[in-house]
Amino acid sequence: MSEAHGIRRGRLRDRTAAAGSDAVLVSRPANVRYLAGGAPPGAVLLLGPEGPERDLLVCPRTPEGAPVEGRPDETLRVQVLPTTGADAAVAAAGFAAAAGAGSLAVEEHHLTVARYRALGSAAPRLRLTELGTSVEQQRIVKDQEELTALRTAGEITDQALGELLESILVGRTERHLALELERRLVDHGADAPAFATSVATGPNSGRAGHRPTDRRVEEGDFLSVCLGAEFRGYRVEIGRTFVIGTTPADWQIELYDLVFAAQRTAREALAPGVEYREVDRVARHQLEAAGYGDALAASTGHGVGLEIVEDPQLAPSAMGKLDACVPVTVEPGVHLPGRGGVRIDDTLVVRPEADGGPELLTITTKELLAL
Amino acid sequence: MSEAHGIRRGRLRDRTAAAGSDAVLVSRPANVRYLAGGAPPGAVLLLGPEGPERDLLVCPRTPEGAPVEGRPDETLRVQVLPTTGADAAVAAAGFAAAAGAGSLAVEEHHLTVARYRALGSAAPRLRLTELGTSVEQQRIVKDQEELTALRTAGEITDQALGELLESILVGRTERHLALELERRLVDHGADAPAFATSVATGPNSGRAGHRPTDRRVEEGDFLSVCLGAEFRGYRVEIGRTFVIGTTPADWQIELYDLVFAAQRTAREALAPGVEYREVDRVARHQLEAAGYGDALAASTGHGVGLEIVEDPQLAPSAMGKLDACVPVTVEPGVHLPGRGGVRIDDTLVVRPEADGGPELLTITTKELLAL
Repeated sequence: MSEAHGIRRGRLRDRTAAAGSDAVLVSRPANVRYLAGGAPPGAVLLLGPEGPERDLLVCPRTPEGAPVEGRPDETLRVQVLPTTGADAAVAAAGFAAAAGAGSLAVEEHHLTVARYRALGSAAPRLRLTELGTSVEQQRIVKDQEELTALRTAGEITDQALGELLESILVGRTERHLALELERRLVDHGADAPAFATSVATGPNSGRAGHRPTDRRVEEGDFLSVCLGAEFRGYRVEIGRTFVIGTTPADWQIELYDLVFAAQRTAREALAPGVEYREVDRVARHQLEAAGYGDALAASTGHGVGLEIVEDPQLAPSAMGKLDACVPVTVEPGVHLPGRGGVRIDDTLVVRPEADGGPELLTITTKELLAL
Repeated sequence: MSEAHGIRRGRLRDRTAAAGSDAVLVSRPANVRYLAGGAPPGAVLLLGPEGPERDLLVCPRTPEGAPVEGRPDETLRVQVLPTTGADAAVAAAGFAAAAGAGSLAVEEHHLTVARYRALGSAAPRLRLTELGTSVEQQRIVKDQEELTALRTAGEITDQALGELLESILVGRTERHLALELERRLVDHGADAPAFATSVATGPNSGRAGHRPTDRRVEEGDFLSVCLGAEFRGYRVEIGRTFVIGTTPADWQIELYDLVFAAQRTAREALAPGVEYREVDRVARHQLEAAGYGDALAASTGHGVGLEIVEDPQLAPSAMGKLDACVPVTVEPGVHLPGRGGVRIDDTLVVRPEADGGPELLTITTKELLAL
């Protein structure tokens, strides 16, 4: 495992050295975890001027028992600060200056103004430069270790959802169903739910990010769920919409078929070299043509990984093209105020056609099930 | 409800006007919620130069169905940005400049360097000043509406814990018990768990912030739990340690009695005018005198409210004195590596002696129960 993290740090070092920075300070937690394997809250990673063997994970002093996300790479030096409450980023800037760095690239999109000023005070002769989203960009294409974790997260998610489908749903509240799904995710080996599970019934169905209420499942409802497992830090999501009772209404079947067709078209569009916005466009176009342009979310999907929403965005204004080994969600939906709606969401990994096309990580059926 | 929020905004306006700022931009989510009553993610509050009736809640454009925390005060003007992805803080700076403000006080401890730079670019003639933690300081002393929500959160928490104590515990895993407690919190009316529920058994018991594992409860274990409800945004916590089986061992009884005595002494020390660090000192002193100085956390407790950890800190180096209507936790603990330990945690509201002394919000018994 440590090898992968060392390779990731090496790639970042090469990129930043080319950009002229002596040292690099990574503070955004998901980025620290990506490069270090694991870290306690508040830890930062310093890639110093002395070479890879002097890379340093700087950890704040925390009470014994404080959680550590993942396992720090054993080849990485770890420095725990002696003083409670000391800021690891500020300390790291001091270490960089002491090691002879003239400049330090920092994550201006993560550091607050107050911390940035404290860094400047702690190491006044260090020139602070902007690392930008270099690490986030590097995280887009996943390595084999990451893909393995994502696959397992997908399996766990399918298992949790599959069990729910075998249980009685009518009369239960959205909140209860969401909690039960989260319990089942953990039962099947998730570290935790990847995000707050959404269960939406009747008029709430099909709303993106709906927060579960005390509304109970009723006959004739659409029921839409969105859930996902986190496994070894990696997160996936699945969204499905079901109908409760024996016979879906005509409008339900029509809407379902439409969203399903849009979702399938977008899934089939996933390939290396395809523009992000093209994937969005093919799904959006179908739903707009059917008259639902106003009911659509800002994007059709997004990258996943150590965070549940990562680059790329599959959205109209997104710039860039898909690569192989990029996991994304494809999740178009339509919500009709007062009536409800449909949302269908999968996590897939982009693969070349020659390797079988996109790899579906969430395999629960997308037939319209009547439960 | 709106009246309380208007009063809060008025107090902040008075303080910042005295400090010479024309306008104030509040971006930290808990601070926005405190002053506005509720807000969607990414919303900011602008107290402009034109007077309280022009206060503005600036909301990013989010997909329909996106969660709103609480309910925005209906006396507050709301401006939803027309463009998806636009930063509400940057837009608010533009509005402040357009309204004639010469300076804008911002939360440098919350805004990232990147957002701060974008604010400067959007309103280059606006002088950005530092609001500091003014809102956090204002939040320390709670008003009646806040205390009411905290009391309800305490009741919900006691109910959830009480039910767990009536169930069979031996053989169940820490993870399952934690999930069950969270389900019961929501059953009893919590918006959500106030923080990740901790359940620690055997050698894990007594560890602050222990993350539940698959270890099962065994006869003879200490079992320590830490949980809390969030109700209308307000969060409390309770921590209790139990022993599993019929007869606690002598070392368990001794350690429990010691931590209980330290916790009681600290609770009894809570009164208006008492220094924060004095509350910590009285608990810490007893545990140190018994030889457990190395096993102690950095603080004995902390404020609670819209966040589970707020000012004040009850810690050795904390400066300041308690006021009436300040809710704090009192949570000393001792963890002995390899053996386990004890942690006892209550949420109380500081009250003058004449009004009955500290008000205990979490009333579950602190006898050493053998379960």
